Amino acid sequence: MNRFEAGSFDVIVVGAGHAGSEAALAAARMGCSTMLVTIDLNMVAFMPCNPSIGGPAKGVVVREIDALGGEMGRNIDKTYIQMRMLNTGKGPAVQALRAQADKDDYAHHMKHTIEKQENLLLKQAIVEELIVEDGEVKGVVTHTGAVYRAGAVVITAGTSSRGKIIIGDLVYSSGPNNSQPSIKLSENLLDLGFELARFKTGTPPRVMASSIDYSKTEEQPGDVEPNHFSFLSKDEDYLKDQLSCWLTYTSPESHEIIRDNLHRAPMFTGIVEGVGARYCPSIEDKIVRFSDKPRHQLFLEPEGRENEEVYVQGLSTSLPEDVQLDLIRSVPGMENAQMMRTGYAIEYDVVKPHQLRLSLETKLVKNLFTAGQTNGTSGYEEAAGQGIVAGINAALAVQGKEPLILKRSDGYIGVMIDDLVTKGTMEPYRLLTSRAEYRLLLRHDNADFRLTEMSREIGLVTEERYETFLEKKQAVEKEIARLEKTRLKPTEELQAFLTEQKSAPLKDGILFADLLKRPELKYEDLIVFAPFEVALPKDVIKQVEVQIKYAGYIKKAAEKVDKLKKMEEKRIPANIDYDAINGIANEAKQNLKKIQPETIAQASRISGVNPADISVLMVYVTQGKIAKIAE
Amino acid sequence: MNRFEAGSFDVIVVGAGHAGSEAALAAARMGCSTMLVTIDLNMVAFMPCNPSIGGPAKGVVVREIDALGGEMGRNIDKTYIQMRMLNTGKGPAVQALRAQADKDDYAHHMKHTIEKQENLLLKQAIVEELIVEDGEVKGVVTHTGAVYRAGAVVITAGTSSRGKIIIGDLVYSSGPNNSQPSIKLSENLLDLGFELARFKTGTPPRVMASSIDYSKTEEQPGDVEPNHFSFLSKDEDYLKDQLSCWLTYTSPESHEIIRDNLHRAPMFTGIVEGVGARYCPSIEDKIVRFSDKPRHQLFLEPEGRENEEVYVQGLSTSLPEDVQLDLIRSVPGMENAQMMRTGYAIEYDVVKPHQLRLSLETKLVKNLFTAGQTNGTSGYEEAAGQGIVAGINAALAVQGKEPLILKRSDGYIGVMIDDLVTKGTMEPYRLLTSRAEYRLLLRHDNADFRLTEMSREIGLVTEERYETFLEKKQAVEKEIARLEKTRLKPTEELQAFLTEQKSAPLKDGILFADLLKRPELKYEDLIVFAPFEVALPKDVIKQVEVQIKYAGYIKKAAEKVDKLKKMEEKRIPANIDYDAINGIANEAKQNLKKIQPETIAQASRISGVNPADISVLMVYVTQGKIAKIAE
Ligand SMILES: Cc1cc2nc3c(=O)[nH]c(=O)nc-3n(C[C@H](O)[C@H](O)[C@H](O)COP(=O)(O)OP(=O)(O)OC[C@H]3O[C@@H](n4cnc5c(N)ncnc54)[C@H](O)[C@@H]3O)c2cc1C
Ligand SMILES: Cc1cc2nc3c(=O)[nH]c(=O)nc-3n(C[C@H](O)[C@H](O)[C@H](O)COP(=O)(O)OP(=O)(O)OC[C@H]3O[C@@H](n4cnc5c(N)ncnc54)[C@H](O)[C@@H]3O)c2cc1C
Repeated sequence: MNRFEAGSFDVIVVGAGHAGSEAALAAARMGCSTMLVTIDLNMVAFMPCNPSIGGPAKGVVVREIDALGGEMGRNIDKTYIQMRMLNTGKGPAVQALRAQADKDDYAHHMKHTIEKQENLLLKQAIVEELIVEDGEVKGVVTHTGAVYRAGAVVITAGTSSRGKIIIGDLVYSSGPNNSQPSIKLSENLLDLGFELARFKTGTPPRVMASSIDYSKTEEQPGDVEPNHFSFLSKDEDYLKDQLSCWLTYTSPESHEIIRDNLHRAPMFTGIVEGVGARYCPSIEDKIVRFSDKPRHQLFLEPEGRENEEVYVQGLSTSLPEDVQLDLIRSVPGMENAQMMRTGYAIEYDVVKPHQLRLSLETKLVKNLFTAGQTNGTSGYEEAAGQGIVAGINAALAVQGKEPLILKRSDGYIGVMIDDLVTKGTMEPYRLLTSRAEYRLLLRHDNADFRLTEMSREIGLVTEERYETFLEKKQAVEKEIARLEKTRLKPTEELQAFLTEQKSAPLKDGILFADLLKRPELKYEDLIVFAPFEVALPKDVIKQVEVQIKYAGYIKKAAEKVDKLKKMEEKRIPANIDYDAINGIANEAKQNLKKIQPETIAQASRISGVNPADISVLMVYVTQGKIAKIAE
Repeated sequence: MNRFEAGSFDVIVVGAGHAGSEAALAAARMGCSTMLVTIDLNMVAFMPCNPSIGGPAKGVVVREIDALGGEMGRNIDKTYIQMRMLNTGKGPAVQALRAQADKDDYAHHMKHTIEKQENLLLKQAIVEELIVEDGEVKGVVTHTGAVYRAGAVVITAGTSSRGKIIIGDLVYSSGPNNSQPSIKLSENLLDLGFELARFKTGTPPRVMASSIDYSKTEEQPGDVEPNHFSFLSKDEDYLKDQLSCWLTYTSPESHEIIRDNLHRAPMFTGIVEGVGARYCPSIEDKIVRFSDKPRHQLFLEPEGRENEEVYVQGLSTSLPEDVQLDLIRSVPGMENAQMMRTGYAIEYDVVKPHQLRLSLETKLVKNLFTAGQTNGTSGYEEAAGQGIVAGINAALAVQGKEPLILKRSDGYIGVMIDDLVTKGTMEPYRLLTSRAEYRLLLRHDNADFRLTEMSREIGLVTEERYETFLEKKQAVEKEIARLEKTRLKPTEELQAFLTEQKSAPLKDGILFADLLKRPELKYEDLIVFAPFEVALPKDVIKQVEVQIKYAGYIKKAAEKVDKLKKMEEKRIPANIDYDAINGIANEAKQNLKKIQPETIAQASRISGVNPADISVLMVYVTQGKIAKIAE
């Protein structure tokens, strides 16, 4: 193949999946000339698996992406067919928004947004090689021999990296949904010295809507009360005419079918090399691991408004197709179901994430970033969350600025990246609320408070978004201040109201804010006793309420974060020589050398590194005793 | 691969391109349980090349498909972004409707129509083998080992059949736009004894709309006057807010770039085996073949309403990518153009069409039909036109009925199929008006008059369509009858009007119909002199006008058709033994044996078969002298 110079960009992003879309948009919006290259322009922001965005932890990531000026939130708000707030009965830390997407619309809108973005060129091509000179990335080469130069490169190759589709004993080379896989880029990464792992994920069959008997299932309608992912979306645009999902269950027969055919499941025949996700198991996994469970939930989810394919959530499988057919038809409501797409597993290459910095730059090659499924995660939101960070940092690198590092206390994105980089992952990593130690700080409702200012500093969020945020912030502060000063008298009406709410009557006057702390009382009910001139917007109220009600917990969490801050701020020099430091245990040394933590805080989270090791390290770093640091 | 029984259908269609979509819909609508299997459900009715439907001859095919109860006309009427009637200054025989499609919408709507169709299952899978028993097709086997039984099978595999993409010296196995190719089905066809040919076609690069300077091009807006492809669409639904196309030209520099790089063009380096279409040449072909032409037209066509890709019509090429880039930028308006997709050629397998009957059934395997690009044609409309015929005949075969054979005088579809089957084709076959000897009969405006009744007899058109047609037909007949009786007096107003139109004044009273025959006079102007109670619909008026104005020509053409009818009706027995017939020249014998014509008329069109041979053959067939026919 003849090579030729085809152009030069500040940032090149490889792969227009969920990670790549955010990465490219972020870099372009930060003023970098950017190219987004992908194998198939008809698969931009394609959802190969579930037609939904959000849910616990993941939904918060979408808000964080939005607060940073990303696209996923706005895109799903334009293209959902159903929306639900989950866990509304529980505390604000676990409330989560989830939307069913119109799959085709979602992809289509994202592609168009990318196409219209200034500074951004979207291009169909297969990147086969990175140009690396003196340990620094300088560009990419495509399958047509085109050489594109760049200041920074972000790889988000997803499950296409030497992808292999597996169905029973059928195995063939393919990206998701029979698309072209990417072969040579993986080989090139190996040549460059990267360690790759093999992971796998799976998807359930899709069935034809008209072949389902919905009367045997339970309807799951969307919420009537407006919600949205993007801080810029408006309540009045909330979709009235939503589509329902439907709940059914596996039957005893389903379990029997699977048990009878386990010997034909790729996970047992040894065909699968890749490691699957524990938290997103196939149905055959579930039957084996939870053998005492009599049935499993299955949600029947429409894939779009003008689309008769139905996604069978919970039935991910790589069993042979005949077993899949029998299995489907053993489920109440699907006795006569027709299968439109067969479920399958896909195995693919992953860049082991300990090879990354917290900025998502690779340690091996300067200005080369990786994000998304490539880094060992699973899920659209996880991918997009890394994508925006990688895009931001690629842009900052080109601009000669310090990277943006999200801390664990800044957001789920920070938790995820720190987990990946500091602990690595032996299986596809998914975000769970349990992964975050500051859950109460990392709420759905306050992502803008956590991140929008930060993003403004690096020049990503628009003026419009920043203004919207400032207005909200000021309104919240003003109202909290007012409620903290407003004393309510034990009037007859108030006492009657409290009795009605089964809340203790007042003995004396009380500050509005203090009364609001009672769990059984709501802002919207109490406000009649201290009306504001004009009714406040819903999101301001929500914020005021959470900040007042949970003030104690929030304060405690914030104190913990503060304490850690000192450790976060203690940076470890890049050229530290752990071997030369006495007093650190051997296992700790090995792991410190492998991970190369950037701060003492990060070091303390590395497995096998004990508090004693940290104390020794602290002395070296803080007291300038780094005489033994290598050149 | 374990095989298993996966289901049984009346008709199975392989490939959901333009041919397959029509075939499957037709069979299902005729009451057959039908399965449409395709490699990628995201590419149903995908347009890999130009984003447009219609044009000379092709536009008439769309009307014919519609008149038969097919989908292409309705689908484009729902999804176009621009529509134009071409050749309005010329006679009705060459007038042609052409629409720019919203590419994604077009595909999406067709998929949804298929999904909603009763009796029809759309399924993603790769068919690898046909089940043939005793020379009769019995079903298909997919890549997952699924065995589906069927009474008839239609193959419409398009350019995916052992597809190879070629760009400069880059060659790789692929279906259109980097999709999975179909390999094993071709091998299976060879095993079954079919002769395959290699053809090729090509597509131009796509450029980014915002990188084009439209001020250097000429705008080509759509028509204001309503038109539509489907006889069921309504004038009031005509799109007001159409998008423009833009006309530019190659420059002397463009030609120089190509000439300088001809040695790198696949057509000259010998990389291409496949035969390309003479009537749809690549730009490098054009520069070589028309070396005296100083410039070539290029149309810049938007690919959709929410899509920034622009199709460069006229610039189809498989030159190396660097040459494509230079080439694009040598064109006025595209000096700074950014390329989003690279142009390429694709090479693929074709079933040589002399192996087919006029029903599109293969001669080799009973109840096996082929249609579309697989039969050696090029173009969406050509594919769809064959698709509907193959689908109809697959259904009729299953129902034990006689096939529907469209004659050359019935429509362009008849011309095309007869050309393919009777003459074969050495290159991708495209419909041109010049291929039809009864051009004046095969008009855009009368496709329903030609075909809707025929389709009703086989049970395909809906009651709604048939009623609409009958109403129109009766209105036309009534109005013609009225105009043939209505005598106009030479009133002052009429004389004045005639003078104004530069038409000779009347000497005496004249029949309205006779006056209308004057070329300079239009129905809509004359009708004030003999008003109808209620204004007639536009399509009725059009029909009345054409039938009256061109009555003489139409009659002559119809007489020719009638004469031929006798020959069309003389069927040649399937088991005729040409070797045993004395008096037929040797070359004629060879070709008759190869083509196995079904009627004397078809025999007379076979190359190398002379009138003398036909006379001999006629005697044998008509006078019952077929004693020498083999068992
Ligand atoms: C079968 C399947 C099942 C899944 N199941 C689940 C699930 O149950 N739950 C869940 O949360 N997630 C699931 N996922 C994962 C989810 O799809 C991904 O997490 C998400 O799409 C990752 O986004 P990404 O941007 O990292 O990668 P992708 O969305 O895979 O995007 C990568 C893009 O890069 C392109 N690309 C790759 N290599 C190159 C190259 N060399 N040159 C140019 N372009 C290239 C690809 O064509 C693709 O467009 C599943 C994925 C698949 C395929
Ligand atoms: C690069 C390119 C350039 C072209 N240029 C032009 C042009 O300039 N002018 C023009 O008029 N036409 C052009 N065409 C041709 C036009 O696209 C086709 O004529 C038209 O799409 C043919 O329709 P079809 O239904 O026969 O095949 P296709 O549209 O190709 O559809 C075939 C379908 O069958 C599926 N399939 C194949 N094998 C199997 C299998 N074994 N199992 C299951 N499914 C299978 C495929 O996935 C595909 O969806 C071009 C095509 C290509 C690819």
